[in-house]
This record gives sequence, structure tokens and C-alpha cells, in this order.
Amino acid sequence: MRFTSERRIDDGVGERAFTLGEIPGILWTPGSASAPAPLILLGHPGGLPAMYPRLVARARSCAAEGFAAATIELPWSGDRPRSAAAEQARADLRRALEAGEPVDDEIIDRLVLPLVDRAVPEWRATLDALLALPGIGGPVGYAGGVIGIGIRLAVVEPRIAAALLFAGSFVPRTLFEEARQVTVPLQVLLQWDDEGNDRQMALDLFDAFGSREKTLHANMGGHTGVPQFEGDAGNRFFARHLR
Amino acid sequence: MRFTSERRIDDGVGERAFTLGEIPGILWTPGSASAPAPLILLGHPGGLPAMYPRLVARARSCAAEGFAAATIELPWSGDRPRSAAAEQARADLRRALEAGEPVDDEIIDRLVLPLVDRAVPEWRATLDALLALPGIGGPVGYAGGVIGIGIRLAVVEPRIAAALLFAGSFVPRTLFEEARQVTVPLQVLLQWDDEGNDRQMALDLFDAFGSREKTLHANMGGHTGVPQFEGDAGNRFFARHLR
Repeated sequence: MRFTSERRIDDGVGERAFTLGEIPGILWTPGSASAPAPLILLGHPGGLPAMYPRLVARARSCAAEGFAAATIELPWSGDRPRSAAAEQARADLRRALEAGEPVDDEIIDRLVLPLVDRAVPEWRATLDALLALPGIGGPVGYAGGVIGIGIRLAVVEPRIAAALLFAGSFVPRTLFEEARQVTVPLQVLLQWDDEGNDRQMALDLFDAFGSREKTLHANMGGHTGVPQFEGDAGNRFFARHLR
Repeated sequence: MRFTSERRIDDGVGERAFTLGEIPGILWTPGSASAPAPLILLGHPGGLPAMYPRLVARARSCAAEGFAAATIELPWSGDRPRSAAAEQARADLRRALEAGEPVDDEIIDRLVLPLVDRAVPEWRATLDALLALPGIGGPVGYAGGVIGIGIRLAVVEPRIAAALLFAGSFVPRTLFEEARQVTVPLQVLLQWDDEGNDRQMALDLFDAFGSREKTLHANMGGHTGVPQFEGDAGNRFFARHLR
């Protein structure tokens, strides 16, 4: 892990850009911390430069609660090399959605599975590097982003102690099965009128998670309309499980 | 409104028993308040003496946030005179449930509609009396209890500014229609594995509410298994809307 820039943003929050091999990422740390800060991994749908405003807002909210936060670029997104297969899968998805057709399982598999297969080990390697830094401690939470990555991480990465997931469709059947193996506490956000997500499938996925403690927060509005107060609710969820 | 007893419980919370005509009730007020305290009406399924431990716990949590809380006995429950028709409807419900039969709409109507018709004016009269007391101010929230009463109150009582409802089945069709007229902010609690409630019907009812801000909190477990942290989430919901 190599730090490429460092600055202070509001409230004394430290922001450090890094690269881990070819993967760019950002680490935010609270202005003052007496003990190692629990770490929250911020997932997102890819494209760090475009996602930055939302991520930094979330990271500042985490820092206000004493949590460190970190994110990395997804494979084949942002400034990382493209994949012809991933581009093809995205184009096929777009075509199906624009035509108003049901999206074929085969397209979802091509879109999500290689991404999860590649991204999860990258997140784990990032975790190794982050937890070796002074001031960053376990336990670790995962918040948001591509739900498939969150599911797989929660299953295979024992350092993830709690996960806040954004309900989404486009969940391959195989990840649906992996959801049954998730046992960490979960908070799942569902936008009730999400134009791009099937409500019943999101409810079925919530039902499938194996966790004994899981809470669904369903709110009105479309995909990007998550109410501001859910940021606070997410922090309280992590405070219960990461302290 | 006649106060029949007064005492201090933990944290300086004041507890006053009262009667309003034949209706017994309890008012809890925070130990210290600089301004009139917003009031939260605590609904329950009837039988104040048996419900007291849960209600006083909820009231203390409200008082810790600076809210007053109040409850009254339901018609035909606790120490109030019985109704032969209500007893018959309860017996018919019990028989259907014990036989594992689907509960007929006609039984639900007989069970819930007269109760809502009678209880809602009683709650409103109680509200008149409570809001005339020094130290109790609007706006007012309604929390929990029989969902039918919460729906009707939210529709007809303009002083109700927000409602925290416990999702339940046994909602008469006519109250389902009234739910569409509810416009105040709502937080709805659903126990995912509630043995006495139909999950799909609870989701349909959530969908039906007309409120632009409505949030569903679904948690694992049966009817009485609402997690402790939902008390905190309820207070935060009311703090957003009653201050």
C-alpha cells in the first residue's frame, strides 16, 4: 500500500489516497481518536471519481462517530483497465433495460459474478494492508455498494463483523445461495419504488440471509432517494456491532 | 380529567394515574423540561394492568428524550365494563386460530371496527385534556398498539404529527382503505416471523399508506421479539418530527 496524497478535510478528518498494486483507493480517519478506530469499508457501484462526493459525505459521517472508512476502485471501473467481457455484459444489460425486456439470468451472471470473483480478494488484500496501519483497528463493517460483493465478503471474510447492504436486484442465483450462509448482523436498505430493482426479489433476498439479527429498512422513493436519516441509522447500527 | 395518584419513578420521571370519565389512564412526564414536552400516545392491545411493565419502559425511554407519554385503557378491557359482542368476537377469533382456519373478514370486522369506532374518540378526548395541562405541548405522536386505532387517529386527528405503528394483520378492509388517506410521517415495525400476522398483508398495508415519508423496519423473530434497539430508533423518528 502506497500513499499518494494526504490532506485534512472538514472537522479534522484525514483523507489519504493510496494505491495497492494497480488499485486506487481512499482512506479517511477521524480527527481525534484515543483508541484504534473501527473500520468501515464503503462499497460503491464503480467509478471512484464520480462517486467521490457521496463517498466522502458518508466517510465524514463515519468519522464523526469515530470510525475510519475506506474504499477502493472496482475492477474495470474508473481509471482502471477495462474488460471487454464486462463492457459487453453492461451493454447487454442496458439494451435489455431500454427495450423493457426482463433481464436474462445469463446476463446478470456475466455482469456480476466475474466482478465479485475479482473484487472480493481485492477488498480482502486492502483490509490486510489497512489493518496493519497504526490507528486502524478491527472489527470491520462493510457498507453499501454492489450487494453481491457485500454478500461474498460477509461469507468469506471473518473480519467483517456487520454489514449494511443496499438491496438490489441483479443478484445471481449463486449469490442468493451464498446469502443463506451469511451470519453477521445485517441492516438492509430497500428503496420501495426503486425503478431498477424488483421489490419482491429484494424481499426474498432479505428473507434468504442466514443472519439471526437482520433488519430491513424500506423507504419510499427511487434508487437514489435514500433518506438522509438512514446515514444516522447506519452509524447506530455499526456503533452497536463494532464497539 | 381527574388525577388519582402521583409518584416519581426512576430518573425523576413523574407518573400520574388519571381517569377521564370512566376511562383510566396514565401520564408520564420527563424529570426536567425547559419547554412544553411533545406528547407521545402509547397504544397497546388492551389490559393496562398487564401491559404496565412494557408501557412504563417505553414511557421512560420517551422521557429520557424529553417527551411526555400517556396511555388509556381500551374499551371493554382491563377494569372497564365488558361488551358481550366484543367477547364473542374474541372467542370466534380464538376458535378460528386454534382450529388453524383462515380468519373470516366478518370476524375481523366485528373484532376491530367497534373497538376503533369507540376508542378513537376516547383518545381524542384524552388528547384535549392532556394538551390543556401545563408542561405538555404539541405536536403529538402515536406509537404502537392496535394498528387500526393508529390508522384512524392518524387520519382524523390533525394534532397527530407522526406515528410509529406495529404492523398487524386483522386489519379490516375499510381501515385498509383509510390507510391510503394517512399523510403523516410513519415508521412501521414488522416482525418478519410473526406467528399471528400475515407478512404479505403487512407489506401490502405498508404499501397502502398514503404518507410520503414512511419507513418499514422489519426485524427477525415473532410478535413479542421486537429488538431493543427499535426503542431508540422510535425515539429518533419522533425527535425528527416532534421538535
